[in-house]
Amino acid sequence: MPSNPSAERLIADLRTLATIGRKGQGLYRRAFSEQDLEARLWVKARMEEAGLETSLDSFGNLIGYTPGCERYVLIGSHTDTVPNGGWLDGALGVMAGLEVARVMPPGRETGVAVISFSDEEGRFCPLLGSQLFCGHLSPQSALGLVDESGTALADARAQIGLSGDTVLRLDPSRHVAYLELHIEQGPILEHEGLEIGIVSDIVGIARARVRFRGQADHAGTTPMALRRDAARGAYLFAEEFHRFCSEAAESGSVWNLGGIRAEPGAFNVVAERAEILVEFRSSSSDSIRLMQRQIPILAQAAAQATRADVEILPAGDVAPVAMSARVTEVMARAATALGFRPKPMVSGAGHDAMTMAPHVSTAMLFIPSLGGRSHTPEEHSTDEALTAGLAVLSATAAELLAQEIQLEAVR
Amino acid sequence: MPSNPSAERLIADLRTLATIGRKGQGLYRRAFSEQDLEARLWVKARMEEAGLETSLDSFGNLIGYTPGCERYVLIGSHTDTVPNGGWLDGALGVMAGLEVARVMPPGRETGVAVISFSDEEGRFCPLLGSQLFCGHLSPQSALGLVDESGTALADARAQIGLSGDTVLRLDPSRHVAYLELHIEQGPILEHEGLEIGIVSDIVGIARARVRFRGQADHAGTTPMALRRDAARGAYLFAEEFHRFCSEAAESGSVWNLGGIRAEPGAFNVVAERAEILVEFRSSSSDSIRLMQRQIPILAQAAAQATRADVEILPAGDVAPVAMSARVTEVMARAATALGFRPKPMVSGAGHDAMTMAPHVSTAMLFIPSLGGRSHTPEEHSTDEALTAGLAVLSATAAELLAQEIQLEAVR
Repeated sequence: MPSNPSAERLIADLRTLATIGRKGQGLYRRAFSEQDLEARLWVKARMEEAGLETSLDSFGNLIGYTPGCERYVLIGSHTDTVPNGGWLDGALGVMAGLEVARVMPPGRETGVAVISFSDEEGRFCPLLGSQLFCGHLSPQSALGLVDESGTALADARAQIGLSGDTVLRLDPSRHVAYLELHIEQGPILEHEGLEIGIVSDIVGIARARVRFRGQADHAGTTPMALRRDAARGAYLFAEEFHRFCSEAAESGSVWNLGGIRAEPGAFNVVAERAEILVEFRSSSSDSIRLMQRQIPILAQAAAQATRADVEILPAGDVAPVAMSARVTEVMARAATALGFRPKPMVSGAGHDAMTMAPHVSTAMLFIPSLGGRSHTPEEHSTDEALTAGLAVLSATAAELLAQEIQLEAVR
Repeated sequence: MPSNPSAERLIADLRTLATIGRKGQGLYRRAFSEQDLEARLWVKARMEEAGLETSLDSFGNLIGYTPGCERYVLIGSHTDTVPNGGWLDGALGVMAGLEVARVMPPGRETGVAVISFSDEEGRFCPLLGSQLFCGHLSPQSALGLVDESGTALADARAQIGLSGDTVLRLDPSRHVAYLELHIEQGPILEHEGLEIGIVSDIVGIARARVRFRGQADHAGTTPMALRRDAARGAYLFAEEFHRFCSEAAESGSVWNLGGIRAEPGAFNVVAERAEILVEFRSSSSDSIRLMQRQIPILAQAAAQATRADVEILPAGDVAPVAMSARVTEVMARAATALGFRPKPMVSGAGHDAMTMAPHVSTAMLFIPSLGGRSHTPEEHSTDEALTAGLAVLSATAAELLAQEIQLEAVR
């Protein structure tokens, strides 16, 4: 068994890291900003102090290996933030990985590696760093990506002095497992008074922009039966979609119609156009596929009922990803042995673990987000939860390494 | 009987008037613009050519009287337009009134007067001129009104050289009736292949801004049951409002929810705020009152169902107005005698006739709008319909004057 990891040291590290890129209460470490690079270099220095061999690739992916090992339990997340972000999202996973690496003695051939992926928050593309690491995205394509202000990744990178085309690449044969500790970003653990959630699946997403087109008419002089009301198309669709999901979607699925715009948008004008943003998330591939089929059916029915036309624009679907049953089980046993009551959970948000899961046995650990908040300066967790998360992460890594050492002995 | 009014002359007048303020295909005679004043002065000159005694007040209301009479049938409408407006809305009523005045011989004490009200389209206030004329609005209050760019009426007026506080005021004892000929601004007459509509009532309006307030949460990580979804509050309210109106509203009522905004308005964020614009129109005071009571009830229910809060902001209610049964009957008989099948109609749009009706016996005549369009350069009617409208208007005025002459004889 390793010496115990220190939650105090982890929290102190996180507090120091949270001084980089701070403006007011919030953190601004947008990927490929000066502050993002500063944070990465600070983490790199801490990795080296801990005796790890580090490597920063030309896209900002940072890795630190316990020297002398052939196979690793890889632990990590990211240190970039959304604008006005919080101190735990991403940072917790990286710094907890480092704390585990500090105390985990290497086996004959096995040890811990720590990774901070680049641009998880998607300034240029969500999960950019892990997608490069796993070969889902070529460096050439990545360089051509632009952010919402039209800046190309190549230029943003050059501005902070990064260049070249070195890319850290996953070698699955060298990685026993990938582990990620993250705040829940939702209210469930807090709501149930629990400190440990173990992710079974990361949800898939079906998204569409549903655009109704009717006819702008005087809303006082046009009889109801002669209208082609784009806004009512959208309201009717929204309610029918909600009803269908409530009845037909796999338990645990969630959906949202958080964006809508009607034009011209006046009291006395029947809306000519209305666009509504539709999102459905589920860990079940069947549910995702069902909704992909159902969105056009419901939209057509709403359009027909309101004499409008409708157009469906896909908006980036994502398939659900299951975590490794074996590693998840090790994690659950470790949590239970430490006296926690781990809750199996579905992650409704995407994480680098999604990208890793198809290539290496992957598991994710959640601790509560206070008030369910994240991506905001109010993002927080308790010291108890941070301590619990670190302990379970560390015990899981230790057990995986122990199993690996046994396997080696058998080889 | 008068000599016949000339539809050719009316159409020629309207075509000439439509050259004033033209930009591209559309008309720009916003109230208190140079073009608006130019049109009024042009109409004033035409009135004088027809032998009328004219008066232009310091707010742009223009009236022309047949000289020597003590009592009048007043006919009119307005010559200001919405930006990018059409050639018939308002202008038809004024120029048809003038054509009737041209051919209607004065009785011993009775004749025709023609009025062009100021700012019917509401640059500063809807029905501004007729409200001044009827004393619903004081000149002092009017001068303080501002348009949507913040310009005060006093300044706009000064810029085109109007000043002073002369205000034409209605003397009910001198007016037998007020008549207004207008395009329908809706599709009903065209839809039914009819040329004459006779307005029985002008609708009242109940309006509200319904604001839902919930909580912005991550739409992937917040379970459905824990959300406070402002957007769903609005969608649910919209559908319940539609259902309630469909079942409970007096026949002929119309409603619209043409404006909605959800914030922050993203795929993956549960909406924190949503505002929806609600309008209901009916000729029945009971229906208007029912909806004024029902909007808060339905909004509260939708808010409760979606765990949001709701606030209702009134947005300018208007009571319904009935036209004079006696004058309407004269008009219907005149139309039938001329071989038309007049359709009793409710006006869903507001008109100066609304302001006049409480003070003087008032009736309105509709002719079809092609495609139901108005407030657009495509606004049009057929020569046949224009001819029909003028004939019915003229015959109605003649009959009212004839009745007045008989009454005088009895006095």
